[in-house]
Amino acid sequence: MEQLTRRAQTANSLLCVGLDPVGENVEAQLQRVVAETAEYAAGFKPNLAFFLARPDGVALLQRLREWIPQGVPMILDGKFGDIANTAERYAAFAYDVIGADGVTVNPYMGEDAILPFARPGKAVFVLAKTSNKPVHSWQDQELVKGGTVSDFSADVVQTLTHEHPGLGLVVGATNPAALGHLRQRCPELWFLVPGVGAQGGDLAATVQAGCRQSDGLGVLINTSRALWQAAEPGAAARDLTFQINALRAERLSATI
Amino acid sequence: MEQLTRRAQTANSLLCVGLDPVGENVEAQLQRVVAETAEYAAGFKPNLAFFLARPDGVALLQRLREWIPQGVPMILDGKFGDIANTAERYAAFAYDVIGADGVTVNPYMGEDAILPFARPGKAVFVLAKTSNKPVHSWQDQELVKGGTVSDFSADVVQTLTHEHPGLGLVVGATNPAALGHLRQRCPELWFLVPGVGAQGGDLAATVQAGCRQSDGLGVLINTSRALWQAAEPGAAARDLTFQINALRAERLSATI
Repeated sequence: MEQLTRRAQTANSLLCVGLDPVGENVEAQLQRVVAETAEYAAGFKPNLAFFLARPDGVALLQRLREWIPQGVPMILDGKFGDIANTAERYAAFAYDVIGADGVTVNPYMGEDAILPFARPGKAVFVLAKTSNKPVHSWQDQELVKGGTVSDFSADVVQTLTHEHPGLGLVVGATNPAALGHLRQRCPELWFLVPGVGAQGGDLAATVQAGCRQSDGLGVLINTSRALWQAAEPGAAARDLTFQINALRAERLSATI
Repeated sequence: MEQLTRRAQTANSLLCVGLDPVGENVEAQLQRVVAETAEYAAGFKPNLAFFLARPDGVALLQRLREWIPQGVPMILDGKFGDIANTAERYAAFAYDVIGADGVTVNPYMGEDAILPFARPGKAVFVLAKTSNKPVHSWQDQELVKGGTVSDFSADVVQTLTHEHPGLGLVVGATNPAALGHLRQRCPELWFLVPGVGAQGGDLAATVQAGCRQSDGLGVLINTSRALWQAAEPGAAARDLTFQINALRAERLSATI
């Protein structure tokens, strides 16, 4: 997470630019969004599904890697989740074939599914509480030993960080109470936070509930559609970054 | 699941040929394993990770689709798990780009992550109890409302099958007691059962615990490495099918 922290400080930004390419002229639009938003991006998060659904998806991901400037982390959002020898193949895909700096991982199959991604220098965001609201929620199930399944995800990842400091959590912006709860539970972990914007998550509540007390960092706030569809993606990214930073400043002064 | 049931009856087989391509001459070996084992295969299960880790992985999956004979289901083992609009992209990848007849799906993100795959005529195997044995097990967590997380997976999928009959479960062979338990809980669902062979699952216990009482079908027993590494994959598949069928016959006669 060092690269991410350094980048967030250098760019003075917690904005993650999500890349879910749809529509026409995808390649030109990807290049444009990356070029215009890079200055404000703490990271880029291409969503694997949107690339695989295209005929040239893997090659396009590789070209995307080239367009993202050195020093700006690229997190491949694959929600990978499989046992050890298979997880190693996914890690080889994400890191060696694509050149990503981090991934998202699904913990349903246990730490076998997580640790093969925890290479030195790589950021691994494990799903804890996601931004959707299913009728049948696995994550909200209450456990006999206390807490919910998403709390269990957070607790295990917290434990694993003692040996694997590159681990963090995915926590959706659509439920600020849950975000605040997990921040209390894991005061120092980096959270990747999707769900602001199109999915309805509130930016102020996200900053308030998600930022670390210690340094005002620790959340990577992802926006995809709002930037992809913006008439001027660069201006939209700048505005979002300014909004986030104003909210961070407010929160810091309130803390003092 | 109709195509699968028909194929299992026609071929008189519950064998699923897992394709996790490793080593040299992968393309020739894939062609050989498919050609030699097709006669005995109730289905083929390529593992997405092993293809993505190769430079030409997606194109190779598309060629694999062509080599698998009509009528033999191809289940793309991608353990997909993402929210609705993203899951639709993965479904487009699996069904439209690759031409798979079914997939494996991870339920951590709720039914949003499952239902976009439930197109008519497609088989969707949802992870319930997998074959690995992690230290930190999400699946074995006991719920306040009773049962474990894997029981919850089984119960939700069972409920969803009323409207989506193409759903089944992934249940590992390495824990026959858990397999029998889930069979009791879901008497009629199809189970995709990995873990026989290299991972240590016992064939006799799998047939005993997994086959449906009603018709002796309902389990798709996956073997990957034992066939891939066999000197004669066809002979190995035939032997396995005969063994499975002998065990099914034993079980049926014991029931009578």
